[in-house]
Amino acid sequence: MNLDALYSELTLKTKSKLVLLVMDGLGDLATRQQKYLTPLEAAKTPNLDALCKDSAQGRMIPVAPGITPGSGPGHLALFGYDPLEFQVGRGVIEALGLGIELKAGDVAARANFCTLDAKGIVTDRRAGRIETEVCESLCELLSKKIKKVGDAQVIIKAGKGHRFVVLFRGPGLEGPLTDADPHSEGKPIPKVQAVNAKSAKAKKAAKLVAGFYEQALPLLAKKSPANGFLMRGIAHQPEIPLFEDRYLLKPACIAVYPMYKGLAQLVGMTKIEGPQTIAEQFQAYVDHHDEFDFFFIHYKYTDMYGEDGNFEAKKKAIEEFDTALPILLKKRPDVVAITGDHSTPCPMKGHSWHPQPVMLNSEISGSDKLPRFTETEANRGSLGVMEAKYLMRHMQANAKMFDKFGA
Amino acid sequence: MNLDALYSELTLKTKSKLVLLVMDGLGDLATRQQKYLTPLEAAKTPNLDALCKDSAQGRMIPVAPGITPGSGPGHLALFGYDPLEFQVGRGVIEALGLGIELKAGDVAARANFCTLDAKGIVTDRRAGRIETEVCESLCELLSKKIKKVGDAQVIIKAGKGHRFVVLFRGPGLEGPLTDADPHSEGKPIPKVQAVNAKSAKAKKAAKLVAGFYEQALPLLAKKSPANGFLMRGIAHQPEIPLFEDRYLLKPACIAVYPMYKGLAQLVGMTKIEGPQTIAEQFQAYVDHHDEFDFFFIHYKYTDMYGEDGNFEAKKKAIEEFDTALPILLKKRPDVVAITGDHSTPCPMKGHSWHPQPVMLNSEISGSDKLPRFTETEANRGSLGVMEAKYLMRHMQANAKMFDKFGA
Repeated sequence: MNLDALYSELTLKTKSKLVLLVMDGLGDLATRQQKYLTPLEAAKTPNLDALCKDSAQGRMIPVAPGITPGSGPGHLALFGYDPLEFQVGRGVIEALGLGIELKAGDVAARANFCTLDAKGIVTDRRAGRIETEVCESLCELLSKKIKKVGDAQVIIKAGKGHRFVVLFRGPGLEGPLTDADPHSEGKPIPKVQAVNAKSAKAKKAAKLVAGFYEQALPLLAKKSPANGFLMRGIAHQPEIPLFEDRYLLKPACIAVYPMYKGLAQLVGMTKIEGPQTIAEQFQAYVDHHDEFDFFFIHYKYTDMYGEDGNFEAKKKAIEEFDTALPILLKKRPDVVAITGDHSTPCPMKGHSWHPQPVMLNSEISGSDKLPRFTETEANRGSLGVMEAKYLMRHMQANAKMFDKFGA
Repeated sequence: MNLDALYSELTLKTKSKLVLLVMDGLGDLATRQQKYLTPLEAAKTPNLDALCKDSAQGRMIPVAPGITPGSGPGHLALFGYDPLEFQVGRGVIEALGLGIELKAGDVAARANFCTLDAKGIVTDRRAGRIETEVCESLCELLSKKIKKVGDAQVIIKAGKGHRFVVLFRGPGLEGPLTDADPHSEGKPIPKVQAVNAKSAKAKKAAKLVAGFYEQALPLLAKKSPANGFLMRGIAHQPEIPLFEDRYLLKPACIAVYPMYKGLAQLVGMTKIEGPQTIAEQFQAYVDHHDEFDFFFIHYKYTDMYGEDGNFEAKKKAIEEFDTALPILLKKRPDVVAITGDHSTPCPMKGHSWHPQPVMLNSEISGSDKLPRFTETEANRGSLGVMEAKYLMRHMQANAKMFDKFGA
């Protein structure tokens, strides 16, 4: 039997409030250089410690053993979607990261300006790493001149440096397409093709990309050094079952960075805009408590400082989160889960596959009687080392949202 | 999405050196009779203890909960192959155990001499358990007289006591076949048949077996008590994806016993011959360090003494392994995993399903801060209780061999 179907069948509507607190990239490593402490272990976290007393703990495998996830798969798993089943293309993630509101079927591409010689050979894949301002003005030019290709609307948005995003919105499109990128210099820009040669929709998308090149390259011909562009990760926004339909929970997202708002929007969460600090985010939860059943609150800085390899800053980010936590707890949700979407260990300065710690608190979570919420303590928790996609089901169970299975 | 395909897609070639140290049958049980200590717990293991400080630990399910594996599935899982997907027939395992070098498509059978009455009825399935020398001389006789059956070469090799192996090497063969063994006395030897009646290759193999009986039985007719023989587990060597193609790691095997060399050869490992003691095996790793990326080092004695139920000897075997370990560590690999292929608990005098402990060490394994490497400590490790087939993926991840999944 399909497990998701079983969960759906057993799901009951309740009045519970559920909160998923994501400290991005929370997990870390106890290494010799870090005196065998992780930032979570080194941080002073009196509020997390107190919550811990009545919580279960465990660790979560974001995707599969040894697989390091990007933010997309990491969050889809937290939202309870199998990240191997629901894959979101690179172009879509990039578009979400720039705050573009995508619709199902939109085809998005990561693009960047490059330099071409007279024969159309790529001589610099990054156009000398032009400044963001230059990129913005070039994107503005393209946007002004190219509104449509065929029957599809074209949306262009500048990113940082030489990077931008192109989005095609029209009937009957899908990805993925091969890259319009030779992946090395000294070659021309290859024509894109449908990865699945049998997909008429992907073939149509490939034609649109070719049409876009036809219109855009002449507009850039006189520019220097950015007289061309490459496109990669061309994919459509997949149809993902709506969070509310799947869990019978009306969801809200309280995030600061566009990428996470975008990922939440992919599954149909309502964005609560405004708050910038974690204290403001927690207050926004309190303010909107009665309007939603489920709140996804995203905290970026643990990941950011992990990427920098800045142990002290990551530790401090955790302490700030902890300090603000009572704001949320004064309107205590029925179920709270605190975790990361993956680990971003300071010694690695990047995402990793190491299972992130998770703490689950409710009236009926039970207590694992662990003194603190840390990676090492979480190893001994009753949730074990589980796949992240099951966290939502644990949260629902703790909200008494599942009927008994069998008699 | 197929997980193996995903791993392949994400695999990067690096210069890392990976070492898999297998103490066969390592896992054991803390029972009252053993004063609640396992051999690992009772052993003095200063070198393992030191390594432990910077390692992750966990326990591994060899095949599936409650399933006790033979050496074949146990090792295939350690090599990262799903032992349920890649099954190696008993005849093949037996042939590997006798040091026969198999080729893909070879059909091998476990055979043993038996006693037949005048009507061809099996009166003793083990021919009075004849001595190994008698078995060897009978096999020599058969080998000398029977070189071929049809277009297939026949290879016969004596084992211990009444046991031997028959191998058919020729074009277009496959198994499995039904047994040429009534499995009880008082019945004739049944004719073998293809298990899959639609397989022309298996039907051909069945004909070869019948042809082999036709040639061999007359040669034994005057012998006593071994005037007949039974054949079981008749199977072909399956096509298994090569280890090097699968992991982008050039693998070497440093084993003493033929069975493990054979299992390593099944997946295309190069055998480093010569070393007999574990110290010599570790030295062989050092000597060949630059020639390979991956080393599988097999240590038999933990299993052997477990099978004997000899706690003291198993403990000593672990201590000897520990004493030799610094030889390997002086040329420190980037990734080391130390584990067993299954448990062979002394109280059970045989293989078991109990998850074997595993320790994983690299610059980025993190430390689970466990004081020792034992079954009980491993229960608290960050690897959790996982399927053994994922160990290879963890080792690759620790060697930074996987690209990020998704953006």
